[in-house]
Amino acid sequence: MSTSADQLKQVAADASAEFLKDGQIVGLGSGTTAALAVGAIGRRVASGLRITGISTSEKTTAQARELRIPLATLAEHPAIDITIDGADDVELHTLNLIKGGGGNLLREKIVAAASARLVIVVDKSKLVDRLGSHSPVPVEVVRFGWEATAKRLTALNLNPKLRKGDGDEPYITDGGNYILDCAVGPISSADQLGHELDSVIGVVEHGLFLGITSQVLIGTPDGVQTLNRA
Amino acid sequence: MSTSADQLKQVAADASAEFLKDGQIVGLGSGTTAALAVGAIGRRVASGLRITGISTSEKTTAQARELRIPLATLAEHPAIDITIDGADDVELHTLNLIKGGGGNLLREKIVAAASARLVIVVDKSKLVDRLGSHSPVPVEVVRFGWEATAKRLTALNLNPKLRKGDGDEPYITDGGNYILDCAVGPISSADQLGHELDSVIGVVEHGLFLGITSQVLIGTPDGVQTLNRA
Repeated sequence: MSTSADQLKQVAADASAEFLKDGQIVGLGSGTTAALAVGAIGRRVASGLRITGISTSEKTTAQARELRIPLATLAEHPAIDITIDGADDVELHTLNLIKGGGGNLLREKIVAAASARLVIVVDKSKLVDRLGSHSPVPVEVVRFGWEATAKRLTALNLNPKLRKGDGDEPYITDGGNYILDCAVGPISSADQLGHELDSVIGVVEHGLFLGITSQVLIGTPDGVQTLNRA
Repeated sequence: MSTSADQLKQVAADASAEFLKDGQIVGLGSGTTAALAVGAIGRRVASGLRITGISTSEKTTAQARELRIPLATLAEHPAIDITIDGADDVELHTLNLIKGGGGNLLREKIVAAASARLVIVVDKSKLVDRLGSHSPVPVEVVRFGWEATAKRLTALNLNPKLRKGDGDEPYITDGGNYILDCAVGPISSADQLGHELDSVIGVVEHGLFLGITSQVLIGTPDGVQTLNRA
C-alpha cells in the first residue's frame, strides 16, 4: 500500500505537535502543511494540553478558533517558545528556507523571529541542495510606488513578477501590501541576497528565512526524518 | 532688521523652485519646509512653468491641488527628474540625512530613491557634524507584532519609543504603520546602522537617507548657501 504525500506530511505534523508542553506560547504557521500541524495541535488541546497560540494569518486564526486552541497576540506575548510552520524550499545543509508561497511571509517571519525555536514540517519534495532551485523568492513591497520598487529589483536581475489574486487583480497581503515573486534560480549566497533585498527601498520583507530554523521534520514512508541545525 | 528662520527657509525654498524646467517630473516633499517649496513651485506654475508633481503625502497632495500643480502617480512616472524636500538632520560632510520627523519617511524615501536628483531645503539649525546629534532616527514598523520588533531594536541599544499622535493613541503613517523614534545619539557609522535596521524583521523603512542627496540649500542672512555632493 503506497502512502500519499498528504499522509506523509500528516505524520510529520503529528510529530511536531508532540513537541509541545503545558504552558508554552506557540506560534501557529500558515499554509496547507501548517494547517495539518494546527489540526494535530487541536487534537492535543482537546486531550488536555494547555498552550497559548499566536496566529500568523486570518485563516489560521479561524482554524484555531474552531479547534478551541486559546489564542493571544504578540503584544501580550512578545517571546514565543516554539513555532511550527511549513516552507516552500528547505536547503539541506543550512536549513535556510524560502517561505511566502501562501502569501503570509511577513507575519510568519515576525512570529518566527520572536520564537526561541522554529520547527518546520515538510514532505521531501521541498528539500533542495540550493535555495531558489524550485521556488521563486516572494518579496513583500509597499503598494505606494511598487512599480519603482520592481524597477530596482529588475536592475538587480531578480526578475520580479507581481503576484495576482482572484481574477487579474494584484494579490494583497494581510498587511495590505503587494508581493513580487522573484524567480532568481539557484542562489549562491542567500545571506548576500537577503542583505540586498533588505536594502531595497519599498521592500517590507522577503521570503528568505536564514539561520532561524531549529529543526525540520520530514514525512517519509519509513517514518519521520529529523534534520537539526548544526 | 533681523530675519526670521521662516524667512530664511523661504528664500532657500524659492531658490529650489528655480531649478525646475518645463516638462520635468518633480517629487514634492512633505513637512513645513517642503510646504514652502511647494508654495514656490505653485507660484512658478501659475507663471507658466509646465511640470508634473509626484506627491509624498496626503497633505502635500491637498496643497498641490489647491495650487493647481498637475499631479501624477509613481505608477505613471517611475523615473523622477528632481525631488525637493526638507530634512530633520543634514550631516555636513556627507549630506546624509535623517528624515521622518513629519511622519512620511516611507513615501519620501520611495520618491527620493526614484529621483535622478534630490534637493534638500533647510535652515542652518538642521546642519550637524554627525547624524543623530539632534534628532532621533524614525523607524517605520508594521503594526503586527510591533512590540517584538521594538524588543529587537532595544537589544541593539537603539532606545525605540513609540510615536504618539493625537491624544495617547499611536501615530499611524499614511502606509498604515507605526513609527518608533530611536534616540541613538551621534552615529559613528550611518551605513552600518542602516544595514542593521534594514535587517530587523518588522522594520518597513528607516529615516536614514544615505548617499542620495544631490544638493542642500540653506537659507542664511547672507543669502542661499549651497552644498553639493562631493
